[in-house]
Amino acid sequence: MKDKAVVLLSGGLDSTTCLGIAHKAGHELYALSFDYGQRHNRELICAEKIANYYKVAEHKVVKLNLSGGNALTDSDINIPDYNPESSIPVTYVPARNILFLSYALSYSEALSASYIYIGVSSIDYSGYPDCRPEFIESFQKVIDVGTKAGVDGSSIKIITPLIKLSKAETIRLAIENEAPLDLTTSCYNGEAKACGQCDSCVLRLKGFKQAGIEDLIEYY
Amino acid sequence: MKDKAVVLLSGGLDSTTCLGIAHKAGHELYALSFDYGQRHNRELICAEKIANYYKVAEHKVVKLNLSGGNALTDSDINIPDYNPESSIPVTYVPARNILFLSYALSYSEALSASYIYIGVSSIDYSGYPDCRPEFIESFQKVIDVGTKAGVDGSSIKIITPLIKLSKAETIRLAIENEAPLDLTTSCYNGEAKACGQCDSCVLRLKGFKQAGIEDLIEYY
Repeated sequence: MKDKAVVLLSGGLDSTTCLGIAHKAGHELYALSFDYGQRHNRELICAEKIANYYKVAEHKVVKLNLSGGNALTDSDINIPDYNPESSIPVTYVPARNILFLSYALSYSEALSASYIYIGVSSIDYSGYPDCRPEFIESFQKVIDVGTKAGVDGSSIKIITPLIKLSKAETIRLAIENEAPLDLTTSCYNGEAKACGQCDSCVLRLKGFKQAGIEDLIEYY
Repeated sequence: MKDKAVVLLSGGLDSTTCLGIAHKAGHELYALSFDYGQRHNRELICAEKIANYYKVAEHKVVKLNLSGGNALTDSDINIPDYNPESSIPVTYVPARNILFLSYALSYSEALSASYIYIGVSSIDYSGYPDCRPEFIESFQKVIDVGTKAGVDGSSIKIITPLIKLSKAETIRLAIENEAPLDLTTSCYNGEAKACGQCDSCVLRLKGFKQAGIEDLIEYY
């Protein structure tokens, strides 16, 4: 019997690469996406297409009621342009990856899954504290001591294939794994075409350029 | 200005005691409850009454879509009677306290709250791994390294006033703090009166007996 893997799938480049890697590893795939009032909820449509592409066993979309106060869920706060000087940006959503991993964990325990894939990177990222290796290690410890699976010794393992990769390296890995990057979206503004100006677009465009690969999605 | 505290409030005896303690400490109170399809969702009505009793600044009820496979959310699985021999029981809900704390954390960061109160006890409990001190310590570490508040040095602190207390000690502490235990509910079956037979009822009744205090809620 195949090991089961829950893959956090936003519909973006990184999570799609992770799904491709989990697919190559031969796992039975369970994709998990969140509708948390993100203004770029166009990514959920992309996530569905990507989940279908990989013929996952289940694609679950969970509605989360997050508190406001950040630019990704609060339409009164503008999405800023990329700023390499800034520390933690206004697009930081309080405890977002902690909530995502907690749901993935609950889902994994219920399914008896062995792995949770998450596409965080501590290299080309936006300065979010919940993308760093020390965060992932601390959450793994929570799984090991705080769940039935952990106490039983069958602990669920968090897999972070991209954590040490630059965006260009991720893109190359995606291509090697034949991940459908043309189905992904990255822009925080969530319009029909990508803005090319926000943090996420700038990191994506720079990554494709450095990798020497053409980005097939549309930009304004 | 008062420090803000988010208090996880199930409507049970332990969380109500915690709310009483946070109230005595002089915090501005934010109560957080979950509707996770629990069959004992009568506790949400109790939680509302208790939140009103303490005149909290906000009482937030979050709807959670948990996966099934446990006796508290799946009506096909019977609530077992109390069994002191059993290890982790079928009433274990996968990653429940992890999800509850994650939501409390997201809410706390958005509010700039300083404290999260949770009424876990590792003494008179049902054998859940997510009630033990090592679990709470591991989650505190997640907060310290994985949130903006943690990285900024203003880290949110988890407060567990009951973690080393027996049920009888908790009941005495509740009485000292004038917590309205007559408004609470503990029974897993969630009927109009308590069953007196499930894990939760048996622990409650034993606690009141040992504390030498009368339990004013109704039993069948």
